[in-house]
Amino acid sequence: MDGRYDIAIIGTGPAGISAAITAKVRNKKFLLLGSAFLSDKVTKAHRIQNYPGLPDIPGAELAEKLQEHLRVMDIAITDCRVNMVYAMGSYYSLQIGQDFAEASSVILASGVSFGKMLPGEDENLGRGVSYCATCDAALYKGKEAVVVGYAPKEEADAVFLAELADKVTYIPVYGKEESGPVVSQRISENPKIDVKYTKPESIEKKDGKMVLHTGLGEMVSDGIFLLRESVAPDRLVPGLEVEDRHVKVDRKMATNLPGLFAAGDITGTPYQYVKAAGEGNTAALSAVSYVDVLSRGK
Amino acid sequence: MDGRYDIAIIGTGPAGISAAITAKVRNKKFLLLGSAFLSDKVTKAHRIQNYPGLPDIPGAELAEKLQEHLRVMDIAITDCRVNMVYAMGSYYSLQIGQDFAEASSVILASGVSFGKMLPGEDENLGRGVSYCATCDAALYKGKEAVVVGYAPKEEADAVFLAELADKVTYIPVYGKEESGPVVSQRISENPKIDVKYTKPESIEKKDGKMVLHTGLGEMVSDGIFLLRESVAPDRLVPGLEVEDRHVKVDRKMATNLPGLFAAGDITGTPYQYVKAAGEGNTAALSAVSYVDVLSRGK
Repeated sequence: MDGRYDIAIIGTGPAGISAAITAKVRNKKFLLLGSAFLSDKVTKAHRIQNYPGLPDIPGAELAEKLQEHLRVMDIAITDCRVNMVYAMGSYYSLQIGQDFAEASSVILASGVSFGKMLPGEDENLGRGVSYCATCDAALYKGKEAVVVGYAPKEEADAVFLAELADKVTYIPVYGKEESGPVVSQRISENPKIDVKYTKPESIEKKDGKMVLHTGLGEMVSDGIFLLRESVAPDRLVPGLEVEDRHVKVDRKMATNLPGLFAAGDITGTPYQYVKAAGEGNTAALSAVSYVDVLSRGK
Repeated sequence: MDGRYDIAIIGTGPAGISAAITAKVRNKKFLLLGSAFLSDKVTKAHRIQNYPGLPDIPGAELAEKLQEHLRVMDIAITDCRVNMVYAMGSYYSLQIGQDFAEASSVILASGVSFGKMLPGEDENLGRGVSYCATCDAALYKGKEAVVVGYAPKEEADAVFLAELADKVTYIPVYGKEESGPVVSQRISENPKIDVKYTKPESIEKKDGKMVLHTGLGEMVSDGIFLLRESVAPDRLVPGLEVEDRHVKVDRKMATNLPGLFAAGDITGTPYQYVKAAGEGNTAALSAVSYVDVLSRGK
């Protein structure tokens, strides 16, 4: 991730992939950021009936066809999570773990966050509550942290944090209803990680410590990490206008921030694959126009 | 076409087909109206690179995949042209040739009309200028008509008109630049049809007759038929709000007329296949909601 990109595309569902394909056709320098295994909502779909041209297709097969399209067009996914996007005036700065990337325009296609915020979460964000273990791990050397993982893949971040922190309490909130969550060996056998099966309820700051109230009572630590699939869009991008929890866009997929576009579920219902793909296409073409005007102005 | 349909979908490009597929998934009673051979803009595309999931696909092959999707879902195309859509209050009436169909909601997905209006066309529409030979043929028994055909398939309507009219002058404005238009035998050998190779320039009414000014001079007749691939949306649906020649829609693909939705190129740029398919999906779900509310109100 060197130099400045024309477009940074955040999200690897149908919207982000569609945007990347069109950005490639238009010969732009872009980053496609997200899970290399695409959006869970695609891969885990049973059968999709209304993606025109691919009748009655299992989600895993649609995901494979999208991956194949990326391969054919020589588009790579940068497998990472974007933690923050800052509007810097004529460009955007993206915090990715402990790195930064710069792009003239951004397309937000990171889906919808179904997780509700916990009481006390919002007011303590950045003051003991964090969404990014890899970003903030260095601050926890010799300290104690509580990590709430909303998906199995968050376990990697808990393990990473445990390398620096003295002690990590890990609360997995995923898995099947019947059996409850099952954590991997790297979590269950890690001497610095203590797994608690419970439900996080609320957060408060008390005597300089962070308190997570849970079904098992209070858990006191130096910091609480909430690791969700996606965060609320206005948390990801300060200053972004949202409406009813979705990014507010016009017909060209433009947001209130110049050069920042959005596509897919993050822009609102219907949550549909082909709607997302169509919006990704429009957002990419809008970003291309924006970047072209910007470069002519130089 | 009996009884009242929930949804009438006008157009068989990616937008109309996508809308039909989603209407079928949602178990609605609908009509899909348009060319059985799908939109020319799909079938004639060389290769399409950015329809996600179908990399680098020839237009004809995408058209075949869309047709296959219709077959799999048992969706039939009603092969016809819709001439007018009238808002009747709680439903819409569609004029299709000399027939009518009724639907609670309508999705306009008939693409963009690239043909410019001729000077004098607008003010004489319905007063000597017609867009529909099959609708108005009966009025031309024993009279003379001039037919301007903007595509080879319009020849069928000229032949139909010649069965009733005394004389038809047919002006083909299509074909290759080099060779000029070539009409079929049924036109060239029809004793009542006179083919003129020229360019229509303007229309006026003079002494109760219609005058078409052309590169070959004045052509006087009782009526002028202008047969184009698609007509301007506000001509098709009286009262429909347009903006810069496109149907004005919101993010739910709703127009200014309750129950009337639009999708695809007709709603504006970018003119892209997957954008059209995405909009068709959204329009169908909006129509489904509209119809559901309407039926609960009964």
